[in-house]
Amino acid sequence: MIVGLVVLGGAQARAGTHSAEPALEQAFDSGIDVQEQSRWLRQLSSAPNHVGSPHDRANAERVLGLLRSWGWTARMETFSVLYPTPLRTTLEMIAPERVVLGGQEQPVPGDDSTTDLSQALPPYFAFQSDGDVTGALIYVNYGMPADYAELERRDIDVRGKVVIARYGGGWRGLKVKLAQEHGAIGCVVYSDPAEDGFARGDTYPTGGWRPPEGVQRGSVADTSLYPGDPLTPGLASTPGAIRLTRETAPTIMKIPALPISYADASKLLQRLAGPPTPTAWRGALPFTYHFGSADGVRVHLAVVSDWSQKTLYDVIGEIRGSTAPDQWVVRGNHRDAWVFGASDPLAGQTALLGEAKAIGGLLKSGWRPARTILYASWDGEEPGLVGSTEWVEAHLSELRSKAVLYVNTDSMGRGFLSYAGSPELTHFLNDVAADIPDPEVPASLLARQRAHLLVQRFEGEPVGRGLEGAARQGGDLPIGALGAGSDFVAFLEHAGVPTVDIGFSGEDSKRGSYHSAYDTYQHYVKFVDPGLLYVNTLSRVVGRIVLRYAGAPTLPARFADLAVEIKTCAGEVEDLLKDQQSSDTALDRLLESGMFRVAADPTQVRTAPQRPRPAEAVDLSDLDAAADELLTAAQAYDRAADLSTRLEDSQVKRLNELLSNIDQLLLSEAGLPGRPWYRNLLFAPGWLTGYDAKTLPGIREAVEERHYDVARTNTAIAATAVRAYAIRLREATSVLVPARPGKPNR
Amino acid sequence: MIVGLVVLGGAQARAGTHSAEPALEQAFDSGIDVQEQSRWLRQLSSAPNHVGSPHDRANAERVLGLLRSWGWTARMETFSVLYPTPLRTTLEMIAPERVVLGGQEQPVPGDDSTTDLSQALPPYFAFQSDGDVTGALIYVNYGMPADYAELERRDIDVRGKVVIARYGGGWRGLKVKLAQEHGAIGCVVYSDPAEDGFARGDTYPTGGWRPPEGVQRGSVADTSLYPGDPLTPGLASTPGAIRLTRETAPTIMKIPALPISYADASKLLQRLAGPPTPTAWRGALPFTYHFGSADGVRVHLAVVSDWSQKTLYDVIGEIRGSTAPDQWVVRGNHRDAWVFGASDPLAGQTALLGEAKAIGGLLKSGWRPARTILYASWDGEEPGLVGSTEWVEAHLSELRSKAVLYVNTDSMGRGFLSYAGSPELTHFLNDVAADIPDPEVPASLLARQRAHLLVQRFEGEPVGRGLEGAARQGGDLPIGALGAGSDFVAFLEHAGVPTVDIGFSGEDSKRGSYHSAYDTYQHYVKFVDPGLLYVNTLSRVVGRIVLRYAGAPTLPARFADLAVEIKTCAGEVEDLLKDQQSSDTALDRLLESGMFRVAADPTQVRTAPQRPRPAEAVDLSDLDAAADELLTAAQAYDRAADLSTRLEDSQVKRLNELLSNIDQLLLSEAGLPGRPWYRNLLFAPGWLTGYDAKTLPGIREAVEERHYDVARTNTAIAATAVRAYAIRLREATSVLVPARPGKPNR
Repeated sequence: MIVGLVVLGGAQARAGTHSAEPALEQAFDSGIDVQEQSRWLRQLSSAPNHVGSPHDRANAERVLGLLRSWGWTARMETFSVLYPTPLRTTLEMIAPERVVLGGQEQPVPGDDSTTDLSQALPPYFAFQSDGDVTGALIYVNYGMPADYAELERRDIDVRGKVVIARYGGGWRGLKVKLAQEHGAIGCVVYSDPAEDGFARGDTYPTGGWRPPEGVQRGSVADTSLYPGDPLTPGLASTPGAIRLTRETAPTIMKIPALPISYADASKLLQRLAGPPTPTAWRGALPFTYHFGSADGVRVHLAVVSDWSQKTLYDVIGEIRGSTAPDQWVVRGNHRDAWVFGASDPLAGQTALLGEAKAIGGLLKSGWRPARTILYASWDGEEPGLVGSTEWVEAHLSELRSKAVLYVNTDSMGRGFLSYAGSPELTHFLNDVAADIPDPEVPASLLARQRAHLLVQRFEGEPVGRGLEGAARQGGDLPIGALGAGSDFVAFLEHAGVPTVDIGFSGEDSKRGSYHSAYDTYQHYVKFVDPGLLYVNTLSRVVGRIVLRYAGAPTLPARFADLAVEIKTCAGEVEDLLKDQQSSDTALDRLLESGMFRVAADPTQVRTAPQRPRPAEAVDLSDLDAAADELLTAAQAYDRAADLSTRLEDSQVKRLNELLSNIDQLLLSEAGLPGRPWYRNLLFAPGWLTGYDAKTLPGIREAVEERHYDVARTNTAIAATAVRAYAIRLREATSVLVPARPGKPNR
Repeated sequence: MIVGLVVLGGAQARAGTHSAEPALEQAFDSGIDVQEQSRWLRQLSSAPNHVGSPHDRANAERVLGLLRSWGWTARMETFSVLYPTPLRTTLEMIAPERVVLGGQEQPVPGDDSTTDLSQALPPYFAFQSDGDVTGALIYVNYGMPADYAELERRDIDVRGKVVIARYGGGWRGLKVKLAQEHGAIGCVVYSDPAEDGFARGDTYPTGGWRPPEGVQRGSVADTSLYPGDPLTPGLASTPGAIRLTRETAPTIMKIPALPISYADASKLLQRLAGPPTPTAWRGALPFTYHFGSADGVRVHLAVVSDWSQKTLYDVIGEIRGSTAPDQWVVRGNHRDAWVFGASDPLAGQTALLGEAKAIGGLLKSGWRPARTILYASWDGEEPGLVGSTEWVEAHLSELRSKAVLYVNTDSMGRGFLSYAGSPELTHFLNDVAADIPDPEVPASLLARQRAHLLVQRFEGEPVGRGLEGAARQGGDLPIGALGAGSDFVAFLEHAGVPTVDIGFSGEDSKRGSYHSAYDTYQHYVKFVDPGLLYVNTLSRVVGRIVLRYAGAPTLPARFADLAVEIKTCAGEVEDLLKDQQSSDTALDRLLESGMFRVAADPTQVRTAPQRPRPAEAVDLSDLDAAADELLTAAQAYDRAADLSTRLEDSQVKRLNELLSNIDQLLLSEAGLPGRPWYRNLLFAPGWLTGYDAKTLPGIREAVEERHYDVARTNTAIAATAVRAYAIRLREATSVLVPARPGKPNR
């Protein structure tokens, strides 16, 4: 029997292809009702949804009930995790004058949701450290490493002081971490209107952008070390689990920190003394930005939290696969929010519910997927991807052997489809995007995405050359790299599951309500996705991904795209090494000849830049060669799969054995340098950037930090993994094209 | 006799070298007293100095008296010119509410000069058109061609409306001209704090940058057509001159226009309706910028001026050359200001006075220059370079045959030396800059300039690759190209006199007081050039240029630098042609495939960009070949000059005949396309940029505007001129290296 064929009806069991079935997908689409999605979104976002809130729990029960009502086998999986909630947050300026700052956002006229915020948590940072500090205030721009280098050149010291950083430039948790590493005693982070306010567009309620009072809450746990419950790294937070303490958990910050609005920040920043900052440090507030000074603005910052354990409610729906029940397609979106969370995460949750109901409709008509489908409504994403991470840790060995795909969505926007994740999914995702019409414009999602990339350079916003080139050539649009920021992290970077994260953006102002009390249903339907057109479209996109992946005889991956990505990344690291060499040479020459002194304005304090550790050469040729081997093997497999006709049962079985968890070969069991939880040799969030992906992180970050021996070791590790991947692909090719005596199969 | 040797004492009469004489220059330096310069600056800037003001006249008399007292032959040359001064300026918002705007700046606490502004002209634009209009207000960003293209794509029409533009992006006059060409009935221009206010640094009086109330006055005459008196293009405005009328003078605007402060602009802009502007259109005011709408903000704009003729007082000091009286070294700086003008122009005027006194001291010790030196204190620069232009027009034929150099300075700053002008002066100016110490830092001006260029890329502000490359190679730093903006225009671009414009900048905030009532002595000594260190240094720089140029046996030019510049510019035009071709191809493909429609946000009005006139090829090979010939000839001459030993009297005479006005060969008697007053084939202010230079303007601007036939014609004209230059240089070389029978001299 041909796997999947009977139940799927009519698809050809060729290797490496998906099984697009127009009738099935049409039936799926007709099972999604955008009006119902609107009602769900309104209901789900009708009260605060933070971890531990009654409404988050009620939504979990609601989702559980819905899944069951649609024919899913559904269960609640709970975890007991550390989750601090604020009891008292204090921020006040005490010099040059006393001004009380901080506290809850104000209601917005015309937005009913915001009328009563009594059940909402006030703005705060999860996993800062409680404390009570008073000190001079220093402005540190984005609070990233380059900013502290600039402060050092100006002889401005943050030791014993409170720093104020603006959002942007990297993950918020790094701002607190770098502040404490530089000796600051407290940290305040605000949303500057340059990035997130009136400079972007009209503010809420006139437009969708962040109003002066809006505050971006968030976690500041050091999730670049590990996400999830800070007390149980690598282990599920089940009742009996061994736990670290608050004091020993390395991802919890050591200083108090708070997020504030730009209305509040403005009061502080406009009073800062000291020299004016460089132009690049300026935001959009209407005064000259200054660094601050030891005898200028002083602030009192204090946070007291309830550090009790809270229960997370992950809702898991399951449809057991008919022919390959031990191959899992997992799809998730979190459900917890900072406040109401209409866009983040409930728009995505609403898409998920639409898909689940439509799949339930297919079930009722007798359809069953070949593979097992798991739908997850995660709790506890906001404090640090906790619900998904604990679940992955709880089911790690099963996931590593069974999960063939994880599909993630999260907050939603309007505009252009984007996807990021495992490179071998590139062609598959392009196919899906080509099959679905954009809800606003008569074009497919793919055509619109391509058009967007192509016109940008005539709009004064050129995209990367690679992207525009790919768009122009008309081939597949490349997939982005994943770092951190949503529930895909544990799947991709800890468990090594092929992953894709999907969303729409580009025409909305969802950032304006991000993590604030203004991320409401009214804000969403007015300024993010009126009519939920894109929520509905997202359901169609994810539905096709899930149905095609769950039904394909063998997994629809194109491995040449992975090989090319590895080669590209290795080339980038080589360019970085060359840049370091040439930049060092130029800098050395300038430092030796005293050029910085000669060019400096003698009326200002500004020393020459520090000379970095000397650049060294790192030989990447072994990795290059391995990537070439992989490319050859991958092209052979992809070609063989394309040419394959009906496969024997045994071939299908063998191919799935070889390929369904092939990405496990890209994991390092020892983990990345300094952060063993992160095991993916290809992708990690940047250690010093946070959200953004670092590809080949063990090598690239070691080069960036100039730990060249580490880079060399990790080059060897990566090359070995890449070669193992090539060998596995050659085995798979030989299943499709059996070697004949006297004729080599490559 | 060796020309110049006797009087100069000891200089070697080699061709092409300057005659640096340490003793003479030391004597010159000791004749400059920085305390005295401070007193002059305070005195000159003690009252408003606009054209026609009593203090401008009094300063003219003072300068005349000083020059005479120092032994100069000095005279006043007067011109009667059109110069409108405002009788009434009105700007008021009449909807959505009535707010009176505009008027004189307010006194600044602590700056005595600003206490009484009763004698100062209020903020206005010279050569706008009087009028009284009321209309809806539209924001047009910088009001440049690209901005109107954007408005057109958004279907926003300025016909019958008043536009408000921010300063920046091009010459202010173009803002008014383009507004009227697009059908606007009035134009308001303001200084946005992004370019000129708190976003740059602390504002006056805390720092030097423009305070909310500061207004940038200025001329809006279309000086890209011709500068000087609008009624007498090409002719001196002497009493009997044939004059155009106000109505027929093409450089006078046809709509009323006023400059305003950002305090005033803020009141208008924050009330504008219509869609939000693109991010690039945003300034630094604390609200979302909108385009405006027909039914939104309405303004009433009215200007009434006194259009009577005014008298300009140019003061000309002369020291007749001992051996070459018919070769003139001319040096000028204007004296008129918009209000007090401490930086613009009186700091430069003070430098000029310091030089003149020091040269007077040399005269008294018996020294005489070989060539004639003329020092000019120009009147009427601010309304449109009128004093210098009328003077050049009055003395045109003499200047074209006699002037060997014009040295210009104007407003002053602190920091790094910069010079722009005729490329053959590059090496000479580098030599001068190498001989003078920076007043702040123990390094020569040249070393500091070089250090500044070299460190920029480590400071996140990389300079052009060519500049950094030149700085790194350690050779001469290149000279900039001159467009417009000060009194050099008539000399360089009408009369074809080799020209250099010199100044310091980079460490000051002189822009903050530019053309406002706050350009005062107090502002200057606090925030521009404390202690007048750079005014004093400028005297030394210009003094050396003048002394060396006036004393050199033959002119110290290196013609290879000119040839290289022409080749570089031709290459730039070729790149531009290639860019047009490839950009057109890409745009055509996108337009034909409807990509802009597919990528557009359907909720917004924004059409695809206009398809420009089709790009054509232009063959520049004839100009390339001519430039190569010039390079060969120039290198041969430069080498021969370097190798030359003592020259015979007849050789010196012949070389000066051939070379002292060689740049006349780069003039087109017919002038540039559409603007016959501009005759220099190498340099002109951009027709649609204003201040900035366009090199090879007849070709480059024709290509930019896609008038390819014009470009072809002008390529031929330029090639012919360049060949004539090469022939002249070969003649000069043959004077140094006489051809011997049987041995060709090239």
